[in-house]
Amino acid sequence: MAMLKMVEYAEAAPEARAVFDDIMAVRKTDWVNNFWKALAAHPPTMRRLWENVKQVMAPGALDPLVKEMLYVAVSVTNGCEYCIHSHVAAARAKGMTDAQYAELLAVVGLANETNRLAEGYRMPVDPQFVPRHG
Amino acid sequence: MAMLKMVEYAEAAPEARAVFDDIMAVRKTDWVNNFWKALAAHPPTMRRLWENVKQVMAPGALDPLVKEMLYVAVSVTNGCEYCIHSHVAAARAKGMTDAQYAELLAVVGLANETNRLAEGYRMPVDPQFVPRHG
Amino acid sequence: MAMLKMVEYAEAAPEARAVFDDIMAVRKTDWVNNFWKALAAHPPTMRRLWENVKQVMAPGALDPLVKEMLYVAVSVTNGCEYCIHSHVAAARAKGMTDAQYAELLAVVGLANETNRLAEGYRMPVDPQFVPRHG
Amino acid sequence: MAMLKMVEYAEAAPEARAVFDDIMAVRKTDWVNNFWKALAAHPPTMRRLWENVKQVMAPGALDPLVKEMLYVAVSVTNGCEYCIHSHVAAARAKGMTDAQYAELLAVVGLANETNRLAEGYRMPVDPQFVPRHG
Amino acid sequence: MAMLKMVEYAEAAPEARAVFDDIMAVRKTDWVNNFWKALAAHPPTMRRLWENVKQVMAPGALDPLVKEMLYVAVSVTNGCEYCIHSHVAAARAKGMTDAQYAELLAVVGLANETNRLAEGYRMPVDPQFVPRHG
Amino acid sequence: MAMLKMVEYAEAAPEARAVFDDIMAVRKTDWVNNFWKALAAHPPTMRRLWENVKQVMAPGALDPLVKEMLYVAVSVTNGCEYCIHSHVAAARAKGMTDAQYAELLAVVGLANETNRLAEGYRMPVDPQFVPRHG
Repeated sequence: MAMLKMVEYAEAAPEARAVFDDIMAVRKTDWVNNFWKALAAHPPTMRRLWENVKQVMAPGALDPLVKEMLYVAVSVTNGCEYCIHSHVAAARAKGMTDAQYAELLAVVGLANETNRLAEGYRMPVDPQFVPRHG
Repeated sequence: MAMLKMVEYAEAAPEARAVFDDIMAVRKTDWVNNFWKALAAHPPTMRRLWENVKQVMAPGALDPLVKEMLYVAVSVTNGCEYCIHSHVAAARAKGMTDAQYAELLAVVGLANETNRLAEGYRMPVDPQFVPRHG
Repeated sequence: MAMLKMVEYAEAAPEARAVFDDIMAVRKTDWVNNFWKALAAHPPTMRRLWENVKQVMAPGALDPLVKEMLYVAVSVTNGCEYCIHSHVAAARAKGMTDAQYAELLAVVGLANETNRLAEGYRMPVDPQFVPRHG
Repeated sequence: MAMLKMVEYAEAAPEARAVFDDIMAVRKTDWVNNFWKALAAHPPTMRRLWENVKQVMAPGALDPLVKEMLYVAVSVTNGCEYCIHSHVAAARAKGMTDAQYAELLAVVGLANETNRLAEGYRMPVDPQFVPRHG
Repeated sequence: MAMLKMVEYAEAAPEARAVFDDIMAVRKTDWVNNFWKALAAHPPTMRRLWENVKQVMAPGALDPLVKEMLYVAVSVTNGCEYCIHSHVAAARAKGMTDAQYAELLAVVGLANETNRLAEGYRMPVDPQFVPRHG
Repeated sequence: MAMLKMVEYAEAAPEARAVFDDIMAVRKTDWVNNFWKALAAHPPTMRRLWENVKQVMAPGALDPLVKEMLYVAVSVTNGCEYCIHSHVAAARAKGMTDAQYAELLAVVGLANETNRLAEGYRMPVDPQFVPRHG
């Protein structure tokens, strides 16, 4: 059960309804997932997050599928069930195959392993890795 | 100061030296970074990890730059200083630009934010997101 | 299913029963939540934790509602389902409104985002932020 | 060393300079901390984050000091050094005392402890804690 | 529902079936748990992980029960439900008692608490704790 | 620089000094590490934590070296620099060898990897792993 009452389109405040409309227009769908129905309980947060998602996930220097896969990598590392499901679905809709997902998880798993080896061995950063600017 | 004495090539046991040689051959470099010098204190772990890295990071269904960026996304989420430096350097060597890194961090940041909104609002997984097999 | 058998009041060892009694007396309730029934499987841990909770959550330099909200912020960051539910309920019992919870989650989400930007950009701590003592 | 070159006011692009100006105006200060100089390497991210911070941290249903303390609680849980320093400084500027900080840390520590007890004992959520809506 | 279709023995590819056979032979059992059925969707990952598990969890300088308890400590800290269940079962099969599990959780909880106190108080590492080599 | 002024024995309040004395008596040493000097800024927290440490880390169903290694496993997973150093030193003082530490880190690393595979593949808990009581 969601913590705050989830808000359906029909009962949404005008500010939230405008965000619902924009989500469906941008995604070219006729439904909105629970993440937004939950945020609709607090329209300023709903609007703010949606503006963030639109800006951050838009095509840019990275393509949208790579961005979705990065999103999944974070969500798996944090163990967030809802986020894993929603962003795997988004990545699949953008073309991610089973084999790509298996490789993504292999990288995420290995990175989580070697992160802890680095912490436990307390390895000093190699001078070759220090960024040089200017 | 590393937790266990870091092992240089000249003083390495034969099993560790063989891994050093393979790392330099695969990477076409004449040096090896501190991660491996630290693991060389325990050659079976060093060999095991290197075999894992070679298999997981090889080109496959995902290209090597995408894999490095996934590695960075995990390392940033975990706050692992050594790993951020070493895998950002590896991603740059594979062509990652400043603009791509800025977008990667924007996605990682946003994912960490929305992961917690999903946890705090306790949103149920939409039936549309549940995988269907068979 | 709980990992160890949860212990009900009627079957509790005297040391655990004394803690049950104190919990109900302090809270002025006639029931005890599952956290304590699970810990009752190991009475020294149950007693130790209850003494900690009483000391840490008592009114002091911070008021009890602020303390509950800090507890929730940690639990959401860690993604602990049981803890989110139990401490949101406790915060509501102390007066937390829906609007306050939405703002709390907005802060927790944003903090998790900017934490990763700070990690990924490797920003040096400003000298103005270094504490000065003595 | 920061990952991307930190941008000082004098060399900032107009979009970044406008954000610097707004930060100093809102805070009534004549300097800006490294977080923003680092983000200034990517002005759209800098602007987006600043708009988020202004909205989320503004006085609302929670007072600004409580919001800063929630920010600190998350940053301590994540072990983010930069964030702990910058948000403790911000909380102190809003009046947080040494005693309040010690109590904040006591709550954060205890919450991190009991979160893991809840995970390890696999306690079921009490029906009394399930939110009821409508 | 698992993300990728879980693979049963009868339908497994030869490479995956060989791993199933080895798992049952090493464990002297006639069934294999879901972790491996899920990984069987990507046989190279399944084989790689099984080789890792065999090497890392074999008796060595640490005895196998201690290794399982360390595995549980990590899984509880990360809040991984599947992993807590599977490794607690493995530890019980190697002799872990209820009292030992309760003490393990007490240590894991306390460590998670004092880790955050150390982060929040920003304690400098004592010179006595710095490793000295050579 | 520590967040709150660290308190030396000579300047400690009587309540804190009594804890310093007990720490040195229990450990049979003539010095106290920075963790306690930092906590001495808030004597009730210092006393509370020391009572917890004494109870949790005492010999019981698990031997003290195993407890220290569990403490290290958590600290490495969380990436807490101070805690890794202090508890590795404590484990070494109780007899932990270099080979044991290397194996401990191998388990911690592997557990962090497989935890994420379990999260990403969303494996259902096997019925064989569900605890049965009563």
